[in-house]
Amino acid sequence: MTQYGEKAAEILRSVRSAKPVVHSITNYVVMNSTANVLLAMGAAPIMAHAAEEMEELIGFPGAVVINIGTLSGPWIESMKTAARLCGESNKPYILDPVGAGATKLRTDTAKDLIETAIPAVIRGNASEILSLSPEGGATRGVDSMNTMEQALNAARILASSLGTVVAVTGERDLVTNGTRSLIVSGGHALMGSVTGTGCAATVIVAAFTAQGDDPLVSAATALAYYGLAGSKAAVEAKGPGSFWVNVLDQLYSITPEELASEVKIEAV
Amino acid sequence: MTQYGEKAAEILRSVRSAKPVVHSITNYVVMNSTANVLLAMGAAPIMAHAAEEMEELIGFPGAVVINIGTLSGPWIESMKTAARLCGESNKPYILDPVGAGATKLRTDTAKDLIETAIPAVIRGNASEILSLSPEGGATRGVDSMNTMEQALNAARILASSLGTVVAVTGERDLVTNGTRSLIVSGGHALMGSVTGTGCAATVIVAAFTAQGDDPLVSAATALAYYGLAGSKAAVEAKGPGSFWVNVLDQLYSITPEELASEVKIEAV
Amino acid sequence: MTQYGEKAAEILRSVRSAKPVVHSITNYVVMNSTANVLLAMGAAPIMAHAAEEMEELIGFPGAVVINIGTLSGPWIESMKTAARLCGESNKPYILDPVGAGATKLRTDTAKDLIETAIPAVIRGNASEILSLSPEGGATRGVDSMNTMEQALNAARILASSLGTVVAVTGERDLVTNGTRSLIVSGGHALMGSVTGTGCAATVIVAAFTAQGDDPLVSAATALAYYGLAGSKAAVEAKGPGSFWVNVLDQLYSITPEELASEVKIEAV
Repeated sequence: MTQYGEKAAEILRSVRSAKPVVHSITNYVVMNSTANVLLAMGAAPIMAHAAEEMEELIGFPGAVVINIGTLSGPWIESMKTAARLCGESNKPYILDPVGAGATKLRTDTAKDLIETAIPAVIRGNASEILSLSPEGGATRGVDSMNTMEQALNAARILASSLGTVVAVTGERDLVTNGTRSLIVSGGHALMGSVTGTGCAATVIVAAFTAQGDDPLVSAATALAYYGLAGSKAAVEAKGPGSFWVNVLDQLYSITPEELASEVKIEAV
Repeated sequence: MTQYGEKAAEILRSVRSAKPVVHSITNYVVMNSTANVLLAMGAAPIMAHAAEEMEELIGFPGAVVINIGTLSGPWIESMKTAARLCGESNKPYILDPVGAGATKLRTDTAKDLIETAIPAVIRGNASEILSLSPEGGATRGVDSMNTMEQALNAARILASSLGTVVAVTGERDLVTNGTRSLIVSGGHALMGSVTGTGCAATVIVAAFTAQGDDPLVSAATALAYYGLAGSKAAVEAKGPGSFWVNVLDQLYSITPEELASEVKIEAV
Repeated sequence: MTQYGEKAAEILRSVRSAKPVVHSITNYVVMNSTANVLLAMGAAPIMAHAAEEMEELIGFPGAVVINIGTLSGPWIESMKTAARLCGESNKPYILDPVGAGATKLRTDTAKDLIETAIPAVIRGNASEILSLSPEGGATRGVDSMNTMEQALNAARILASSLGTVVAVTGERDLVTNGTRSLIVSGGHALMGSVTGTGCAATVIVAAFTAQGDDPLVSAATALAYYGLAGSKAAVEAKGPGSFWVNVLDQLYSITPEELASEVKIEAV
């Protein structure tokens, strides 16, 4: 058992006893599935986007998720209001820049949110993180060098320039605050055949960030916990349908002790 | 088999043959899951919120659900239009005041809807019902006395003052019309680890209200049916994922005869 | 193995290797479930409705789905923009006229979309297709003659008048381009007890249309593939919950070879 194993167990225990509120302003596709992920792990989801109730909701102890997966004008305004309120009240918010790099609206919205208030953690896939990196992703050619190394570089630069934590999820996950970088192993290829598995990673990171004291460690241990659930869920899965059912069962069943001994995190 | 057992069987049989339309103006999180609940039990879900088609839809035989889980300005207007049309046409509508008491917007919206037209049934958890009670919930201190007794009191006062039925769901469920009060047993703790289980209770109540003649009995027998599905679903569940899959299978499979013999409703 | 069997296998193989983007502007109820259907079969779903990013998204290779299940003013505008852009760029779009015939808003919206740009395929149930037929559905009396024959007639007339393909799904599915008509067998009665099974058919048709060269054959083979998944999924299902989990597993597991030998399509 490593230091990260112990830490992961401690945070999971804390999530299950404190039941932090994870308030998500998120996309329509994953509202149900990420609420179920949060409940399965022991946290308390709230999905709400009305500006009129934003201030009251951000007053609850926990963390906020802003996920830009299905944008429209009024929702962008709500997201900015939420980011601003998080900034003013030092409440951690986790940004999931879904599709940044794929359309200008998404890249711009993600950048606007970051400018409004720095997220505690940004969680995306390699191309999303590359598109937010100060050097830009589009001009560098995603296939021109080792993607993992490139993503780690982009994440480090982004994290350093903002003074925050960036998590790049993929076959293996990279988590960095610009000076310290961790690699998390786990998960399963079936995650690519279920919608919202990245968004699910984000809400788990949010719950762990609410209860941890170092967002770098919270993000890495959250991803290790999710990866363990994915690996175990795959054992008896016959395809993506049964896999996802099993993931929810595993998030619910994994004990802190089991997590402690199974966490696979290494510094790079 | 009690009188309620026979009644429950009769209503379930009627739902499955008449397939009442349950038109929901509901939150984004549970649109899919509550549509599946309605189909599994034998009813016909419609999810629609556009003011332009509200009058036509409310003309279909069945019941309406108004659930305030993910509010915004345009949706509040649609909900009020629906409540008004239900009032004008004597169509039963079931109110699910999700999060009333948690934010002013939700408490106000629930109260506005009730003022627009009295719901046939209001279904909420204890704190939601307390927040709508004429005496107010916030000032009374939820923990200062026995919560179940307090919720029953608040529900009775609310039901009496409005001349309607109030259902408070929790470990056990309370259903009252102010003069008669019933307690329904069943369900399983795993319901707390799945999103939208309260909203699912509401749509089942709606389908039973559409086919029954006394909303008090419809609401209580609907909750007994749902509770039986929950208890049976838990037997082979490994966690909240498989539990919810089983709940849908049970709602589909439970026969009127089985329901009749398993209903646990007692007057208080 | 028939010509259609070989064709079905070829298109499924092509979907899994090319992973076409299926961009859906669809209803809230099925966003999650249809995204999962597309991922399970090997395609790449995007759910997005903002006018600001429509042009960029329609630039991706693949197909577009427009599904009118939960309308509102801004969404109708987005759908028209998408239809217009598809028309201008010769990108195939598949129309799912959910509830056409049930309300004026839905019938009018479906007709407006068709007028904006002719869909590559229109996929609906019998009453939806009847409501869009030039002769009108409402006045002909759905029960006054053989429904299947009537639906095929209406579909033929609609397809001929527009020069497109119309797919009417039901116990058996009819696919016609006005001159050639195919009947597809498969599926299972449990599909009627799960929400969004028609919408799922539509996205599968979209993915097959993106990779095929004849929309008539793409639509018919897509429905044969889905029907096979449904039949196989029902074998071990205990109700609609486990049935749908199995459908996703089957969409993922069915091989092109198996599909080739199981396709049940006949010309009429």
